[in-house]
Amino acid sequence: MNAAAFPLAAREAETKSGTVVQIGEAAVGGTEVVLVAGPCSVESPEQLRAAARAARAAGATILRGGAFKPRTSPYSFQGLGEEGLALLRAVGDETGLPVVTEALEPAQVPLVAAYADAIQIGSRNMHVTPLLRAVAAAGLPVLLKRGMSATLEEFLLAAETILLAGNERVVLCERGIRTFDSYTRNCLDVGGIAALKQLTHLPVVADPSHATGRRELVVATALASVAAGADGLMVEAHPDPASARSDADQQLSPEELVDLAERMRKVARAIGRS
Amino acid sequence: MNAAAFPLAAREAETKSGTVVQIGEAAVGGTEVVLVAGPCSVESPEQLRAAARAARAAGATILRGGAFKPRTSPYSFQGLGEEGLALLRAVGDETGLPVVTEALEPAQVPLVAAYADAIQIGSRNMHVTPLLRAVAAAGLPVLLKRGMSATLEEFLLAAETILLAGNERVVLCERGIRTFDSYTRNCLDVGGIAALKQLTHLPVVADPSHATGRRELVVATALASVAAGADGLMVEAHPDPASARSDADQQLSPEELVDLAERMRKVARAIGRS
Amino acid sequence: MNAAAFPLAAREAETKSGTVVQIGEAAVGGTEVVLVAGPCSVESPEQLRAAARAARAAGATILRGGAFKPRTSPYSFQGLGEEGLALLRAVGDETGLPVVTEALEPAQVPLVAAYADAIQIGSRNMHVTPLLRAVAAAGLPVLLKRGMSATLEEFLLAAETILLAGNERVVLCERGIRTFDSYTRNCLDVGGIAALKQLTHLPVVADPSHATGRRELVVATALASVAAGADGLMVEAHPDPASARSDADQQLSPEELVDLAERMRKVARAIGRS
Amino acid sequence: MNAAAFPLAAREAETKSGTVVQIGEAAVGGTEVVLVAGPCSVESPEQLRAAARAARAAGATILRGGAFKPRTSPYSFQGLGEEGLALLRAVGDETGLPVVTEALEPAQVPLVAAYADAIQIGSRNMHVTPLLRAVAAAGLPVLLKRGMSATLEEFLLAAETILLAGNERVVLCERGIRTFDSYTRNCLDVGGIAALKQLTHLPVVADPSHATGRRELVVATALASVAAGADGLMVEAHPDPASARSDADQQLSPEELVDLAERMRKVARAIGRS
Repeated sequence: MNAAAFPLAAREAETKSGTVVQIGEAAVGGTEVVLVAGPCSVESPEQLRAAARAARAAGATILRGGAFKPRTSPYSFQGLGEEGLALLRAVGDETGLPVVTEALEPAQVPLVAAYADAIQIGSRNMHVTPLLRAVAAAGLPVLLKRGMSATLEEFLLAAETILLAGNERVVLCERGIRTFDSYTRNCLDVGGIAALKQLTHLPVVADPSHATGRRELVVATALASVAAGADGLMVEAHPDPASARSDADQQLSPEELVDLAERMRKVARAIGRS
Repeated sequence: MNAAAFPLAAREAETKSGTVVQIGEAAVGGTEVVLVAGPCSVESPEQLRAAARAARAAGATILRGGAFKPRTSPYSFQGLGEEGLALLRAVGDETGLPVVTEALEPAQVPLVAAYADAIQIGSRNMHVTPLLRAVAAAGLPVLLKRGMSATLEEFLLAAETILLAGNERVVLCERGIRTFDSYTRNCLDVGGIAALKQLTHLPVVADPSHATGRRELVVATALASVAAGADGLMVEAHPDPASARSDADQQLSPEELVDLAERMRKVARAIGRS
Repeated sequence: MNAAAFPLAAREAETKSGTVVQIGEAAVGGTEVVLVAGPCSVESPEQLRAAARAARAAGATILRGGAFKPRTSPYSFQGLGEEGLALLRAVGDETGLPVVTEALEPAQVPLVAAYADAIQIGSRNMHVTPLLRAVAAAGLPVLLKRGMSATLEEFLLAAETILLAGNERVVLCERGIRTFDSYTRNCLDVGGIAALKQLTHLPVVADPSHATGRRELVVATALASVAAGADGLMVEAHPDPASARSDADQQLSPEELVDLAERMRKVARAIGRS
Repeated sequence: MNAAAFPLAAREAETKSGTVVQIGEAAVGGTEVVLVAGPCSVESPEQLRAAARAARAAGATILRGGAFKPRTSPYSFQGLGEEGLALLRAVGDETGLPVVTEALEPAQVPLVAAYADAIQIGSRNMHVTPLLRAVAAAGLPVLLKRGMSATLEEFLLAAETILLAGNERVVLCERGIRTFDSYTRNCLDVGGIAALKQLTHLPVVADPSHATGRRELVVATALASVAAGADGLMVEAHPDPASARSDADQQLSPEELVDLAERMRKVARAIGRS
């Protein structure tokens, strides 16, 4: 890979230590491994409030939740839209957690930015330059998810597009790549996490929920991500996973989230982080 | 695959023959195998005019060319924008060829629709629902390219999204999928072309230029696509490929385009088409 | 790709035209597109005799059939073994068709060579150097199938191993590669067929049966292979596909085989072959 | 996945705890995370002796090294053959380390079994049933590497083949799978490691050297494997990696191996192992 292709994102070992992106009180890219948790979709005030409390109880410092949902089928639940954004803001304020949520198109960015503390660019949109630029212009931290079949170089070029547009607060998120084996929804690329930490100064988090698509594999792959050097985890958790309107198979229960967080901290300490 | 997932796009053998999408005088999905040709990017009046004449000389009935270019690197040529659209319209009118060009974001669609005869949704955007809906609403025929790692079912669900939005004039374009082998830029999925012709009533064209990324492989894969049942070919051709500002390695010269068209017609006749 | 890595297999345009491998009366790599047909597995004298007659009736000039079957599960039918070889020899002699069948391990090669006119190395074994050398040493023509996830360069290096061992009669067989989409069993790489014809002087045939795994897609992909430049087709056909002990979903009936052969000849003529 | 397809390999939670495979004093599948280390290829007495001492110094309890090397190119170094086996035996005896090495074909198995304490089946051979059966019959523990594009189900069916042949001492080795991104040699499938631990009672080790192909990524992915639940690591290490006759880019130096082993133990303890 030619680091000259992404001069802003490239790690220049002598002159630039890792970038820390501050989202609320969470310092992504610092010593602490950050936990981002919340439901796949915002469904109701009760659901979101319970999910946020569970997140906080587990030690998460950022709340995630989808208001505009990118779905493969036009017949699937598409999210609550602005109502979902308002719920995120209200529940985030109640619980003291900053919120990150996804924008699906450039015209939506100002609306999302009015409610959120950080904006997510989803895997389906990693290649969509106009959205990258619109999110960059919103001035909030950006959580950029790797395209499901994007190479590491393409991922870094997407980050470069945001940096070049003047926004330096970019967090990369490895969320699994598509392979020939469909037993897991995707394949978590821990070698990619390790490689990104060497190739760029930007922080890197992992999303074991989308990487595996299976609840029973989330904890093991989350711990693997931390051991590989991830600066944080983004995990889907729902107060009642079985009733979830999207991604029911991969969301953790509140108890499972607490268990994950405790184990995550042990692994973090074992590799010299907190 | 469960055809009930895409009821509008599914082929119901008894009640619905193949859909024919009319673009100018070209009937995509009819007996004739249609040739869409033109440069990767619109670069100048001279370049586009020469490319359009070459396309017409080869028997192409639709002119293609990019004004807004989706690029992986923010440092690559991004296209001429509206100037490119105006050139496409002017040269299309001069040569009597309808023009198809890509829109990259919903807000761009009205502008593109003001100049074009059909709107392309590129491979990077196949999953982007807001763009699918915006293009559907423009009321023009839609050329929907398969995502570079989209399954056939995901491809059909993207088409379904457009159909559900009220636009029935959708042409599917197989343009190669991403595999482990990088000798060719992508792998042209001729089995996918054949499968799509059975799964849906929508017309299917092939793009051997992006599928291979190598000029010397374009003709063979173009003929293979026709033999597999493609209703048309979309081929990049440039008056001087070596000087092209994008995709220089895969564009055909005017002479090569004529040769391709002649061979294409022979194969089309061999399988009972014209 | 660096052709210096496979000096014996590489096409040196000025000095070496395409190699023709003679198997019985079939000249693989000549002007004529060769048809190899027969059942997946040899099951009984009646089944093989009916299959061979159907193959001959369709104009096939080589009979295929498996006696030693490479299977993923140890509980699947493993083939008739030497009894199957003897049947192949007897039925080949009756019908005047040379027979090609697979050897699974070096120690089996002399036995297979005693009955067969050409030896197949299957996709699972393309990387297995000891088997490549043992088959090379048998002195018969070799039908080398591409590994299901082998790059073109790895495929050519496997051929190089046989050539270096002193056997120049190698036929390459593209049989589909593994991708993320499981609708078809594999993805037929027609760009790979075209590329191989440029990279090497060895003849190239295609196997649309394993490439698609679906009877209804075999004909279209077979024609695509011929249009892409394949020197022949290897097709699974069974007198009663529904009763087949292996690959029941992808074998053609005798009538379908005749139809395929007729259409194949039309496409072959359209591209200047016979 | 249907566990009924591999009844012997399947984990039956109530009746069968995890299998422990004893190789020398190493109990693979027990509480301790086992370290297997050694050079890619056996090159000389001096090189192997130094590598073995480094392995022992790092706490490795099994010595690995290739005598018969499976190579893609026939022009690459193919290993020292029986001379390499004899060196492995001698150095293993000197250092008190049991040795594991690969057999490439059935006829080689008795020879390898005469020198080795466990036999490896390489990634290229995972699908080769005759070799699986021959190695099973040797009566030694088997280290079965996952095929580079084998699904988890295919991997388990290969293990089933060995178990069905009467040898229950099978260790599975995840060594990275082939994807569209070539920055790393393969993609280590940590979700696969976690899934295998749930699907089968057999022990699972990871090979971060082949998974990444890059020395600078070996430690991070090794730790990730342990965190994901691997029962051991198999790591390539060479007294002077730069001079290695194969895999020079991915072998660790003695100092790096010690560092890896120390960090491995910390992560193992953090997840409740030793």
